[in-house]
Amino acid sequence: MKLKKQARRDSIKKEIERNPFITDLDLSEKFDVSIQTIRLDRTNLNIPELRKRIKNVAKENHDRIRSIDGSEIIGDVINVEPDKHAVSIINIGEDSVFSRNLIARGHVLFAQANSLCVALIHKPVVLTKESNIKFIKTVKLNDIVTAEAQVVEYKEKYYIIEVKSYVKEQQVFGGTFKMYYTSEDEING
Amino acid sequence: MKLKKQARRDSIKKEIERNPFITDLDLSEKFDVSIQTIRLDRTNLNIPELRKRIKNVAKENHDRIRSIDGSEIIGDVINVEPDKHAVSIINIGEDSVFSRNLIARGHVLFAQANSLCVALIHKPVVLTKESNIKFIKTVKLNDIVTAEAQVVEYKEKYYIIEVKSYVKEQQVFGGTFKMYYTSEDEING
Repeated sequence: MKLKKQARRDSIKKEIERNPFITDLDLSEKFDVSIQTIRLDRTNLNIPELRKRIKNVAKENHDRIRSIDGSEIIGDVINVEPDKHAVSIINIGEDSVFSRNLIARGHVLFAQANSLCVALIHKPVVLTKESNIKFIKTVKLNDIVTAEAQVVEYKEKYYIIEVKSYVKEQQVFGGTFKMYYTSEDEING
Repeated sequence: MKLKKQARRDSIKKEIERNPFITDLDLSEKFDVSIQTIRLDRTNLNIPELRKRIKNVAKENHDRIRSIDGSEIIGDVINVEPDKHAVSIINIGEDSVFSRNLIARGHVLFAQANSLCVALIHKPVVLTKESNIKFIKTVKLNDIVTAEAQVVEYKEKYYIIEVKSYVKEQQVFGGTFKMYYTSEDEING
């Protein structure tokens, strides 16, 4: 359904408020206009590009994370409730794929999931102990991967965390991580 | 036991022939001399430094690997018997550790093991399907990690590969990888 310009801009604004991490391509398909038109609409609405929107949100979240420096997290954490759950986004660039088939390398998806598990735990020292992972569907160059981590068990010495990663609605990766932590007392004592 | 200079140099030469990936530090401890003396001895014997010795061997091996470009392997493959076993070495540099505790990041050890599994399989397309891994002992900045991969099961559609990684004699990481492959016929057909 094609909208008049101002109606479309109003709708784009609402759509991005609802889903801040929607891509320009998805918006262009949704509103049946070119990507160039979406870019122009965003400029007019004063809404930065996706990459910048993610970075802005990630910066605030990274400041709240205790177990790892923000700059060391693989991916951008767009949502974190310490010791409960967290979400991060990664954009699969050329460095992350095999050159011969443009399929994302396994360790990139693992690194996103694993560092999200570290970021999620609100302790000064967190280490990965074990992990069982499945690569469910191949991820390609330029895909945007959203990883969702959820604490499923919390013991005196470790957490069990489940991570599911998606490209759009399709799950591409799943993993269970057993994470050890050390409290401040043990470090000082 | 301290040797005279020429006797020591003869022994160093033999030791490096026996174990081409011994470090200068290990040699200096073995022969009870300073690292500087070992460096001088190597120069005199015309034996390049460890990093160069590894790269020389890795280059030959990387040329024989079919499933992945040599430059894309994480670590240097120092031994490969296609479809059977393979060994790689990685030097844990500053990029591979958490800045706050200098402990190697999990995904680096995973990446070394996983890309060794890809390199080991002599097929044009190889993808990781599942993996169960354990981090047995923390690895630190400047550690040299040797990963050994062994095919333990070979089916029509996949391989099961076991990887054990060591720092010196101590196992630090262990993993089982289920790897899918595609033969040339399927790609062309």
